[in-house]
Amino acid sequence: MKRAVVLLSGGVDSSTVLAIAKAEGNEVYALSFDYRQRHRVELEYAKKMAAAAGVARHLIVQFDLREIGGSALTSGMEVPKDRPSKEGEAQEIPVTYVPARNTIFLSFGLAWAEVLGAESIYIGANAIDYSGYPDCRPEYLGAFERVANLATKASVEGAMKFRIMAPLISMKKSEIIAKGGEIGVDYGLSWSCYDPQPGDKAGEVVPCGRCDSCRLRAKGFAEAGMRDPLAEDR
Amino acid sequence: MKRAVVLLSGGVDSSTVLAIAKAEGNEVYALSFDYRQRHRVELEYAKKMAAAAGVARHLIVQFDLREIGGSALTSGMEVPKDRPSKEGEAQEIPVTYVPARNTIFLSFGLAWAEVLGAESIYIGANAIDYSGYPDCRPEYLGAFERVANLATKASVEGAMKFRIMAPLISMKKSEIIAKGGEIGVDYGLSWSCYDPQPGDKAGEVVPCGRCDSCRLRAKGFAEAGMRDPLAEDR
Repeated sequence: MKRAVVLLSGGVDSSTVLAIAKAEGNEVYALSFDYRQRHRVELEYAKKMAAAAGVARHLIVQFDLREIGGSALTSGMEVPKDRPSKEGEAQEIPVTYVPARNTIFLSFGLAWAEVLGAESIYIGANAIDYSGYPDCRPEYLGAFERVANLATKASVEGAMKFRIMAPLISMKKSEIIAKGGEIGVDYGLSWSCYDPQPGDKAGEVVPCGRCDSCRLRAKGFAEAGMRDPLAEDR
Repeated sequence: MKRAVVLLSGGVDSSTVLAIAKAEGNEVYALSFDYRQRHRVELEYAKKMAAAAGVARHLIVQFDLREIGGSALTSGMEVPKDRPSKEGEAQEIPVTYVPARNTIFLSFGLAWAEVLGAESIYIGANAIDYSGYPDCRPEYLGAFERVANLATKASVEGAMKFRIMAPLISMKKSEIIAKGGEIGVDYGLSWSCYDPQPGDKAGEVVPCGRCDSCRLRAKGFAEAGMRDPLAEDR
């Protein structure tokens, strides 16, 4: 059975990609990152999602991007709320951008993929309903694929050819959610919010509902004509 | 003063590059990695070297590549000893190759460089007297530079243009050491050995003298007609 590494944040996009990678006949190795992000609670959802999908292994690599900073997700900067969405227009890249994040994530993904003999590295990158991050665009992913095939022993020796798989790249959020619904993704096990808020119960956190990620999620479910099970739980 | 990030392992090459980056008029930010490598002692040397060079800051990012494995430097595999060197011939890539290591290192370097406003990222990659690692070749470094400029907010917004600086790329080890000697690098503060051995004193470790890295170092000093101060100390 062919193997694939799937970058899994625990959000809607990567959870859908996890299911797609399985549906495409891969033995799936899920890879998550504890980079001391503000919304580390997403890792609890990633664990549940990986378990529900029956992955071969779920690895969480840890490092501290607060030491590098430069983002509202890894420093004291505030997460923007109620930012107007400008459909069809070039978006300003918001302060939730994390410098070189997908490059770091894909690099670890590449390392693990080489060791596992997995030629496909799946990522939930999406360049339609997204926050404008440069490392979610097809030209970036193509350039990284080239790096992957120049960087590794397995590729230069001709044993492997890596592919960066971004099946959601040109899908709207509503299309992603509809697709996930079709292939049985339980979005109640996914987390999107960048700025978790204290809930009613002790220790509980709930989505803020107002950050870009919450708003894109809500818009996606609304346009797909589906109910968000995570919102239902509350 | 322009800024530069320098990847600093604590070895001969990266220590020389650190001095070159300073000599080229940069305010230098040294970046090292504790990836639970077998030869973590190199980080003690990196600290001394960074301090001696008077860097603006020395950051050591930590993560555990033993979880990913696939290398004699991060697993129980033995480090090859007395491997014949085949000058001018294509070398087999040895088991000390660490999957995607330079891609991971450069990714963190890129993140930090963007936050610091440092357009130059220096790396001690060398494709002459080296172990044959694919991620030390010019075509790899060029491909990563392209990724860097597609991946980041600062570059896509036109505020920065990243350059991967590999001033040693086509130098022999003896030329590197001679250059370092000229610009005042104290190689007594550098460490090369992949497989540190217990020394005579309690807690002390000494170079094995037989791994590729020890042999390349010894050959370099011999051909440069210089004495290795690290060997002298013993």
